[in-house]
Amino acid sequence: MDHEKEVAGGLSTVRIQGLSDGVFAFAMTLLILDIKVPQIAAAMVSSQLAHLLVALWPKILSYVTSFLILGVGWVGQHTAFHYIKRSDRILLWLNILYLMGVAFVPFSTSLLGTYPDERIAIFFFGTNLVLIAVLLYAIWTYATWHHRLVDHHLEPIVIKLLKQRIASAVVIYFVIIGISFFSTNASRILFLLGPLSYVRPSRLDRYFH
Amino acid sequence: MDHEKEVAGGLSTVRIQGLSDGVFAFAMTLLILDIKVPQIAAAMVSSQLAHLLVALWPKILSYVTSFLILGVGWVGQHTAFHYIKRSDRILLWLNILYLMGVAFVPFSTSLLGTYPDERIAIFFFGTNLVLIAVLLYAIWTYATWHHRLVDHHLEPIVIKLLKQRIASAVVIYFVIIGISFFSTNASRILFLLGPLSYVRPSRLDRYFH
Amino acid sequence: MDHEKEVAGGLSTVRIQGLSDGVFAFAMTLLILDIKVPQIAAAMVSSQLAHLLVALWPKILSYVTSFLILGVGWVGQHTAFHYIKRSDRILLWLNILYLMGVAFVPFSTSLLGTYPDERIAIFFFGTNLVLIAVLLYAIWTYATWHHRLVDHHLEPIVIKLLKQRIASAVVIYFVIIGISFFSTNASRILFLLGPLSYVRPSRLDRYFH
Amino acid sequence: MDHEKEVAGGLSTVRIQGLSDGVFAFAMTLLILDIKVPQIAAAMVSSQLAHLLVALWPKILSYVTSFLILGVGWVGQHTAFHYIKRSDRILLWLNILYLMGVAFVPFSTSLLGTYPDERIAIFFFGTNLVLIAVLLYAIWTYATWHHRLVDHHLEPIVIKLLKQRIASAVVIYFVIIGISFFSTNASRILFLLGPLSYVRPSRLDRYFH
Repeated sequence: MDHEKEVAGGLSTVRIQGLSDGVFAFAMTLLILDIKVPQIAAAMVSSQLAHLLVALWPKILSYVTSFLILGVGWVGQHTAFHYIKRSDRILLWLNILYLMGVAFVPFSTSLLGTYPDERIAIFFFGTNLVLIAVLLYAIWTYATWHHRLVDHHLEPIVIKLLKQRIASAVVIYFVIIGISFFSTNASRILFLLGPLSYVRPSRLDRYFH
Repeated sequence: MDHEKEVAGGLSTVRIQGLSDGVFAFAMTLLILDIKVPQIAAAMVSSQLAHLLVALWPKILSYVTSFLILGVGWVGQHTAFHYIKRSDRILLWLNILYLMGVAFVPFSTSLLGTYPDERIAIFFFGTNLVLIAVLLYAIWTYATWHHRLVDHHLEPIVIKLLKQRIASAVVIYFVIIGISFFSTNASRILFLLGPLSYVRPSRLDRYFH
Repeated sequence: MDHEKEVAGGLSTVRIQGLSDGVFAFAMTLLILDIKVPQIAAAMVSSQLAHLLVALWPKILSYVTSFLILGVGWVGQHTAFHYIKRSDRILLWLNILYLMGVAFVPFSTSLLGTYPDERIAIFFFGTNLVLIAVLLYAIWTYATWHHRLVDHHLEPIVIKLLKQRIASAVVIYFVIIGISFFSTNASRILFLLGPLSYVRPSRLDRYFH
Repeated sequence: MDHEKEVAGGLSTVRIQGLSDGVFAFAMTLLILDIKVPQIAAAMVSSQLAHLLVALWPKILSYVTSFLILGVGWVGQHTAFHYIKRSDRILLWLNILYLMGVAFVPFSTSLLGTYPDERIAIFFFGTNLVLIAVLLYAIWTYATWHHRLVDHHLEPIVIKLLKQRIASAVVIYFVIIGISFFSTNASRILFLLGPLSYVRPSRLDRYFH
């Protein structure tokens, strides 16, 4: 069996990554369209502008939250495709489904920004995030199954660590949704803090090469 | 005749693919702008939000349908450019026309999402898809004619299989348009199911290398 | 003098091209936002939709025109950067100014689509195109001056042919603006036909390698 | 210690740059959405269009200013990543925060374009720019600390010159914000002129290779 061919053959992943970077970049930038410049009658601008800008804070927090969450998604997918060396039709489609979830985030964010105290808005937003995480889990599991689309020499520990990391995101988002039954405020704060736990370096990083 | 030069010469296809990924990513992400957060008076939010979110289902289905259809287009163009090794002015322009059809999909989708029971909306949407498929057929036929822009060694079977696959999309979209004369519901369901037939691996995939 | 270093040194042009493909892709896709789905009262949809879709033709023509014109710009910049092998600060900025003109096209297009019979709208649209062409001319002239940023071996005929081609665009756009003093209809048709003259292969293409 | 591995190992920076180009391209192109085609009753178009287009000048100036400022940011980040050869989790996140600031610019621009004479709008806009510059400073400092993510042989003078250049932007933006306490007009003119000082070649450019 020709190992080199096995790894390097098939469709490359360059365009998967190009399309993904595009979708992430637009989804991130689209978020800003949800923050609108307050329209004020000329006579009242001086007295009201500062007040109305402060009133935008929930929207800005929502922007920051979703940007960070999309950041987590991008870093996760980036890490996965660092190891995935070729693609096939199934992988292309799993990734398109994944991007469908990513491109949906601006809507979920806008919903949560508009109705921050509604449990159903948190449920909708959280479900969107769960779907994204589940699809990334599917991508990674599919690609690493018997080293299908990754390098033959990839250490099993890397496969396992990344799998755990993605799975933990699914669990975390489920827990945050559950917490909304007690306090929608707590849920929203946790959606913001959640990404932070992914920023710190992890054991996985030692295997980046 | 210098074969190496014949294949590697000419303009590269890197930027065609970069521009295409950008247009696809943007068209896909733009689709979400058609789903608007329902605006509800504060006193009625709790009682109405769930109801109005359910009422968004046709729009969400329309989003999923178009995302999958753009996915089919992207996978198809990706596959074609996996084999196309250089470009010339005609190819650049065929691809620009192709992208003009792709960037039109958010409008057709919005039209169909707004008037899902109108035969003319289905006709408009379907014609958009036919045009895209015909242009991809033109790209592939032009590029592979006497191995003009593909590798000299590319097996004729690959050329033929991809040609058939693209042609079948043209036929399928025509049939779905025709079915709308009997049932617009059936047409819309078929537009959603159509992409699924492209997800399963095909004989073509065996030749990816 | 170290020729290899002279050519390969300096900042690469990969990211210039990445940024440019992004701006072109978004500007092209943004054009579709100017075509709005007609909003019709439920009782009158069947009788009016077809009529109102036909009434969108000027907007659609405007979309096609601007897409083709941005296509000409993209092909032109693509051709130039096929030969430009490294960059410097001046080139980066000339290209940013060029992209500023490109990103302005959706506005000019919308203006012309809204007021197709106003000479001032044609003047505005045409001036936008002249600016883009002049900036591409500046990019090419700057980069090829004493082979500053192109390969040492690049034939002078290639430099001259591309320069003439870009200059001819400037002249053509000026002439079309001038014609608007006699007939705004004629100007709009010529803006649509103009790009077609760039689609046919040219003497320049023989030098692609 | 394996020097080659130290430099080439780790996550590549290709996708950081791809995502960044996408966000910059989209943020730049979004700016145009803030300039709206004036809507005029049919009978008054001829008499009013020219007048209303001239009235768009503040918006157009705002577009040019922000495009140039994003250009400065892009050139700066481009220069930094010309030398940064690998990435780690911290760098990925610093860059995501940086992009969060970049994607915020269309909002700040729109705010300043709507209320050009309000000190608070200038303060908001200026703070956005300061944040971007500070984050780029953090990226560069983190990446070059003990040559962490740059080539072992990178001259210290390059590290120092780029650091000074970014720091000077922070200072300049602070000064412009301060000037708004005396004259908001002066601040706006300086925001436009500021980028120009970055266009001219600098001592740093001699080290591009």
